[in-house]
Amino acid sequence: MTHMATRRPARKRPAEVGYRTRVAGERRLRTRARILESAVGVFARKGPDAPVIDDFIRAAGVARGTFYNYFTSTEELLAATTHRLEDDLMVRIERELESLDDPVLRLATGVRLWLRWARSDRTFCEFIVRSRFRGELVERIVTTDLRRARAAGEFSFRSLPIARDLVVGTIRESMNRILQDSVPRSYVDEVARLILRGVGLNERRIRAALERPVPAMRPPRRTPS
Amino acid sequence: MTHMATRRPARKRPAEVGYRTRVAGERRLRTRARILESAVGVFARKGPDAPVIDDFIRAAGVARGTFYNYFTSTEELLAATTHRLEDDLMVRIERELESLDDPVLRLATGVRLWLRWARSDRTFCEFIVRSRFRGELVERIVTTDLRRARAAGEFSFRSLPIARDLVVGTIRESMNRILQDSVPRSYVDEVARLILRGVGLNERRIRAALERPVPAMRPPRRTPS
Repeated sequence: MTHMATRRPARKRPAEVGYRTRVAGERRLRTRARILESAVGVFARKGPDAPVIDDFIRAAGVARGTFYNYFTSTEELLAATTHRLEDDLMVRIERELESLDDPVLRLATGVRLWLRWARSDRTFCEFIVRSRFRGELVERIVTTDLRRARAAGEFSFRSLPIARDLVVGTIRESMNRILQDSVPRSYVDEVARLILRGVGLNERRIRAALERPVPAMRPPRRTPS
Repeated sequence: MTHMATRRPARKRPAEVGYRTRVAGERRLRTRARILESAVGVFARKGPDAPVIDDFIRAAGVARGTFYNYFTSTEELLAATTHRLEDDLMVRIERELESLDDPVLRLATGVRLWLRWARSDRTFCEFIVRSRFRGELVERIVTTDLRRARAAGEFSFRSLPIARDLVVGTIRESMNRILQDSVPRSYVDEVARLILRGVGLNERRIRAALERPVPAMRPPRRTPS
């Protein structure tokens, strides 16, 4: 009993304990953010399967032991990186969509915002294309709006998964093209046009949806301060 | 002079030389085919970036020295594997399309044949999805038919690359789904329907195109005899 007691750290005043804990917690979050941040670049360059732990340690500039305090495998890191990207991007897009109730406009605007972003952020674009990224929030938003627009009689398709595959597949292939060619500004709206047609929207409504201005959205904060 | 002459191999009769050359050439082709054949499985399992030469040597059951007689890097092997798959699949599909002149029917039939094949051959499907496969023959057929059908006033889109991205992206995403879910037989035609809509075909023509029976096509010979 006495022996165990001596091994306990000296007792701190409560305020000091709170300060130290908070500082340690903040440092932990910053280190985690730094690892995730540099991991986006590694996955973008090497794809999801090729990188090894050393690649991430080198990119983040942390010690091996430090790295393992946060992640134990590249799979775990890939999952966390994907979540972070989803937070960065989809939360911002969803904020823009909040003011829209019409599911047709929500889908059209979401596609346009996503592709504009892809055009402006090459690392993000490469990560998504190479990582077989499947964000849960993206899925929820896309399928909800597809379902609602079909229920409203605006979209028409027999299979929701196939409509979703057309939307996501076309976007993904377009991002691939963005990485390879320099695409004109008009590109984004033309992709949205063919997608909206594919899910069955009529031409008049497509024109109306694409005539609306796209909300300005600032690019995501890449490097944590 | 005399010394050099003794190092020459004994002269063979022409017929025998021809026989030996032919046998060696055939053996070479068989070994190459075996390496390519097993490489499809390795790339399907591990993706295009992760495999190392050892994976291919093990899968093909050849010696390291033998392997390097045929390929010097995984990139070279990936290119050759892609070409072989394209030969296997697209040459067969194109044979079915030869009898069709209408570019709308050609595209509709090509999409249906491709996806039926993907449904029946999981290794092929995985390879394509993971390898970022871009077959030249596929590209040529798709873009030619898209262009011709637009010129005939049946399809309508402003940008040929975007129409191509919709076709290829939707197919690719559908193949991803085929790998994850068990999709019903009707799935293939429903994907083709949304693609044809996306490129601007009217509903009457879509129905007519999908009512036509799909030519029966035997699966490709996987393992060389």
